[in-house]
Amino acid sequence: MAHPGTHSPRLWVWLLLVVVSRTVEPVCGVWPLPQQIHQSPDRYSLSPQLFSFTYGKDSAAQTGCSVLDAAFKRYFSIIFPDFTKGPENGLRYWSESKPFVVSVSVKSRGCDGYPDEDSDESYNLSVSDGQAVLRSVTVWGSLRGLESFSQLVYQDDYGSYFLNKTEIVDFPRFAFRGLLLDTSRHYLPLHAILKTLDAMAYSKLNVFHWHIVDDPSFPYQSRTFPDLSNKGAFHPFTHIYTQSDVMRVIEHARMRGIRVVPEFDSPGHTQSWGKGQPDLLTPCYKGDVPSGSFGPVDPTVDTTYKFMERLLKEVKYVFPDSYVHLGGDEVSFACWQSNPNVRKFMGKMGFGKDFTKLESFYMESIMNMTAALNKTSIVWQDVFDYRERPRAKYVVEVWKQGCYLCEMRRVTKAGLKVILAAPFYLDLPIPTHSWARYYIVRPLAFKDSTGHGSGDLEG
Amino acid sequence: MAHPGTHSPRLWVWLLLVVVSRTVEPVCGVWPLPQQIHQSPDRYSLSPQLFSFTYGKDSAAQTGCSVLDAAFKRYFSIIFPDFTKGPENGLRYWSESKPFVVSVSVKSRGCDGYPDEDSDESYNLSVSDGQAVLRSVTVWGSLRGLESFSQLVYQDDYGSYFLNKTEIVDFPRFAFRGLLLDTSRHYLPLHAILKTLDAMAYSKLNVFHWHIVDDPSFPYQSRTFPDLSNKGAFHPFTHIYTQSDVMRVIEHARMRGIRVVPEFDSPGHTQSWGKGQPDLLTPCYKGDVPSGSFGPVDPTVDTTYKFMERLLKEVKYVFPDSYVHLGGDEVSFACWQSNPNVRKFMGKMGFGKDFTKLESFYMESIMNMTAALNKTSIVWQDVFDYRERPRAKYVVEVWKQGCYLCEMRRVTKAGLKVILAAPFYLDLPIPTHSWARYYIVRPLAFKDSTGHGSGDLEG
Repeated sequence: MAHPGTHSPRLWVWLLLVVVSRTVEPVCGVWPLPQQIHQSPDRYSLSPQLFSFTYGKDSAAQTGCSVLDAAFKRYFSIIFPDFTKGPENGLRYWSESKPFVVSVSVKSRGCDGYPDEDSDESYNLSVSDGQAVLRSVTVWGSLRGLESFSQLVYQDDYGSYFLNKTEIVDFPRFAFRGLLLDTSRHYLPLHAILKTLDAMAYSKLNVFHWHIVDDPSFPYQSRTFPDLSNKGAFHPFTHIYTQSDVMRVIEHARMRGIRVVPEFDSPGHTQSWGKGQPDLLTPCYKGDVPSGSFGPVDPTVDTTYKFMERLLKEVKYVFPDSYVHLGGDEVSFACWQSNPNVRKFMGKMGFGKDFTKLESFYMESIMNMTAALNKTSIVWQDVFDYRERPRAKYVVEVWKQGCYLCEMRRVTKAGLKVILAAPFYLDLPIPTHSWARYYIVRPLAFKDSTGHGSGDLEG
Repeated sequence: MAHPGTHSPRLWVWLLLVVVSRTVEPVCGVWPLPQQIHQSPDRYSLSPQLFSFTYGKDSAAQTGCSVLDAAFKRYFSIIFPDFTKGPENGLRYWSESKPFVVSVSVKSRGCDGYPDEDSDESYNLSVSDGQAVLRSVTVWGSLRGLESFSQLVYQDDYGSYFLNKTEIVDFPRFAFRGLLLDTSRHYLPLHAILKTLDAMAYSKLNVFHWHIVDDPSFPYQSRTFPDLSNKGAFHPFTHIYTQSDVMRVIEHARMRGIRVVPEFDSPGHTQSWGKGQPDLLTPCYKGDVPSGSFGPVDPTVDTTYKFMERLLKEVKYVFPDSYVHLGGDEVSFACWQSNPNVRKFMGKMGFGKDFTKLESFYMESIMNMTAALNKTSIVWQDVFDYRERPRAKYVVEVWKQGCYLCEMRRVTKAGLKVILAAPFYLDLPIPTHSWARYYIVRPLAFKDSTGHGSGDLEG
């Protein structure tokens, strides 16, 4: 080590170079990294007073486009966080500032629709002196481009705003970029869900997988079956999602290009359902008598299917997305096995002692109902594992640890779409799960990968 | 005065009586005072864990009723402000507590509609041991009853909840109980408007009179005329109400039984309109040449009426209420008088030098448009004062100081409905305006009063 107080000239030069290079280095903070991004050291200053969004003349969407009008308002505040202005303040110009216009052009309008599995989210963004041009096929693509644009702007130590000359060509690698929130084990108040949707938009995530009910509680307030939340929620008035709450979530998500896919997980994970729907769950037996506890949904009685059909009809009506998640994971067979009626049904159906066949029988029934309602089912991988060749098309979500890429290969080989959740459980501890590890997951690194796939973060 | 340290025995007895009477006195805090309220000292304790709302068996509205489902959720938190509960806390019973059920019955469903001028807001509320029965004709009446119920509940020094045996028969004295917010002179962010709507519900006010635009700024983002806010708002992105903002306001209001009546005040109070709609305002003249400044809307050109018709069509589409406020107040005639084209038009129409006739001509035109769109016009009293016998029915809002009751008499005598705002300007200073004075206003104390009338607070 050199003696403190003495520095070799070479070190000084190096430090100077670092300082110089920092002032000209363009900001590369766009997240996730666009498919193509080219930035130059040419830097433009932005004045909030002279900054505006506008619709391109050739744009199919113009003022009145709900999604983009609201996005312009939102992103202005995101880009200029400390900007406030009243009439009494007048305009403050910086001498070097000039107007800057972000022109947004969309090919097809669709401002009042919902994003869905086939939505084109690609966009091109070109930032030059005094203007940025953002082009996309859909308004959802524009939202992604506005997010990228907002991330290009930075402030210096004096609070002035800048951005660099930039060209971006971008489209998502995966069509389904989900975040799962479990509102059954822990009730989340509405504002927490809305805030999470904001955060998803900042990361260009596009599916809110709402694991809305489970064993511990049933917070969804059903129109058709109000007792499900009256008796199955942690609290029937404070810890529920009313229909207007659900509408708020769906609209907040829509404004950010986010799909809302609800999950009504059955036949397992349904303890809370049983409180408000008495004959739904299987009574468990201890020897020849009911033990007083209950197991999964009873797949042997007609009332179960009538109930599920009515519930799914309501779900179709309330949630506009084309997908609905039907669960199907972690079904414990012990209770079914203990119940003499279930055993009798197994015999009648020729299932022998294979309870995976009973689960498959149930899942296929509700997947057929879902298909009849024009919705695509998602199920956890268990359903696929039990019965590899189903009649209907569905989407498989891979959640089990171990060789999840092997499972991906099996599912895609069967011609089904797949969502990968296994390596992304945010609640699991290090060292097997740490944020750094998420970056080394290679979802497509399996044989016969077609290059298509999806991911779902488990929040 | 008695010497400090000595008290006569009589004073002590009196103090004791005060203490005793306070513990048995029922709470009379329902606001505004119901038409009939009878309370007894019989006091019931409430346990949040054993408290519930339910729909009466004979109620036309049941679970799935958006307005009431959301109200049950909201009022639970209002009634028990410090109540939080998670699964890990378990249930905490007070030994003396027992279940308490509020049963709500509505005659006609109408959960998805909007409150309007003929909505029945009456309700009966009966609180006895273990239950409250709330009956109303409409869901709007239930909301008023739930508000009253929430005000009956109080906490002692230990945080326990109580309410007394109570009978309430209630209906509003006035059908139109408005609060005006001016979002033009000072832009109010969305959350401030929503919070004001909450406060209105606590006072059973039922009309949000949204004075949305005026001279200083035009924050309403019009689909048809985007330049009105692009150029006329304090800021085109941050200080505007997008269509989705307006929808949020209307839905938040609907959930609380509050109508949203927008005001697009013209032909005066329109300086901000002129920025985005160049030929709308009258150019003022200095001698024979335009002075560069502009006056009220130009009522002499066809383009003005085409513009107003398109704007009003949009307003009809966006705001569901049957009323729309067209303004018509404080029109300065100096600019019209200075303009040679206007003077020529006056001559052609035979108006002489009476510019009130020109204003009446304009107002009648836009009131006819409004009637053709199936909406009822409200106008400020100036319009009535200038021309007492109009063809169409409309509502007159009295705002001028002086003998406002004389004006009320004139308007009602002409067979028109009237709203009284004059004595309720919250922004005017004492001593002529103070909160205490609002209580001595007697809106119906004029000759020939039919007993019907309305009030509008100017916020």
